[in-house]
Amino acid sequence: MNNDDTRIRMALEQVPLFNGCLPSSMENFIRNGTVVTAEKGQVLFLHEEPASRFFVISGGWIKLFRETLEGTQAVIDILPDHHIFGEASIFQNDIYPYSAEAVEPTVLISLPLSLLKSEIETNPKMALSMLSLMAQTRRQQDQELEHRIIQNAPQRIGCFLLRLANQTAKGPVTIHLPYDKTLVASRLGMQPETFSRALAKLKEATGMDIRGSTIEMKSLEPLVTFACAACSSEFPCKDLC
Amino acid sequence: MNNDDTRIRMALEQVPLFNGCLPSSMENFIRNGTVVTAEKGQVLFLHEEPASRFFVISGGWIKLFRETLEGTQAVIDILPDHHIFGEASIFQNDIYPYSAEAVEPTVLISLPLSLLKSEIETNPKMALSMLSLMAQTRRQQDQELEHRIIQNAPQRIGCFLLRLANQTAKGPVTIHLPYDKTLVASRLGMQPETFSRALAKLKEATGMDIRGSTIEMKSLEPLVTFACAACSSEFPCKDLC
Repeated sequence: MNNDDTRIRMALEQVPLFNGCLPSSMENFIRNGTVVTAEKGQVLFLHEEPASRFFVISGGWIKLFRETLEGTQAVIDILPDHHIFGEASIFQNDIYPYSAEAVEPTVLISLPLSLLKSEIETNPKMALSMLSLMAQTRRQQDQELEHRIIQNAPQRIGCFLLRLANQTAKGPVTIHLPYDKTLVASRLGMQPETFSRALAKLKEATGMDIRGSTIEMKSLEPLVTFACAACSSEFPCKDLC
Repeated sequence: MNNDDTRIRMALEQVPLFNGCLPSSMENFIRNGTVVTAEKGQVLFLHEEPASRFFVISGGWIKLFRETLEGTQAVIDILPDHHIFGEASIFQNDIYPYSAEAVEPTVLISLPLSLLKSEIETNPKMALSMLSLMAQTRRQQDQELEHRIIQNAPQRIGCFLLRLANQTAKGPVTIHLPYDKTLVASRLGMQPETFSRALAKLKEATGMDIRGSTIEMKSLEPLVTFACAACSSEFPCKDLC
């Protein structure tokens, strides 16, 4: 077994989707997987391009987005390690439903979509894993849509920070922004100036201390009170992170 | 076969999810289904209630929504005939992920979630149908999130109207709002006054004629130019309606 095989196996074992895999199928995925590196800003694929591979993130961050004819960009998600992307194209006539770009130097496992498709069609456990994954994505999207209706900008930033925190922490909490503020703003669908104003309001409302990308607070409570009042879910958020 | 059985069969045959059903399973669904009527405003179930049934709409409209602790309501969707709801609870520990209310007098087919669950677990075709349904919902949610970032309020109303129109129509077009304007506003996550202002702007930009719930225009083109410029999909929208 070469180093790449070991890296692919370790990466796949971290992804819930592959829990439903039969051992023989797992070997098949590993044999057909390749390790790919992407530089910061490198585009992996574009929205509406024909799709033949999907990807597991094994170190780094990937931005999913779409662009209008006029060139305006809508960020759909920014995904960390152990997340997959590109898989949804098997339900969309093998066309990528979004573009994907590396936010920083990133290591990916590239896997054939044809193998995922045949696994889902022949192995009910794999189909169920895929259903669970999609159900989780749906809950997250449901909540995001709800927040865009109900929450104001400072509350939405607060919710974003709560997801980065250890939600069961008592006492002082430190949160590190995972990527730069401009990207956090676009992840939240805000203009940078809206984001700055909203962050200042959030700071005022909760007494948090912000230094560069580090945020400190004496406890999570004021943040929870501020952000979660405008949400139909209870804190701590179950599987929404 | 009684009248209810015929009604249930006819309703189920209109729903793509049941295409993957074996004939014996279809009979099983019909045998365990009941016809339920709901008055205008009647709540079918509440968010976070234990779930044992899911529903097919067989005449009428159903509003799905969630409420915050403060009582603010976020409308998730307003569904017409041949749509199902409540099914997602099988992936959420048998808890309804939203509340459901009849917008007008509505006829529903109520079906056991346990039957859906066992079908999905044992019949790969049914699992694939469920996956297709979820993928379609996901595409719609993706687009809705994108629109909330990119489109302004008049463009979002324009997009809503385009989905109601015959998208291949040439020449004059008449669109009837399916439910009252207050509900359209809440479906689009807008305050009634925002909706009124945005509708006036849309009228001015496209030259459409609005009388009560009827909207007339000489052709769809100005509306497409106005709304679809701020969207990553091309008109006509494939399976997004």
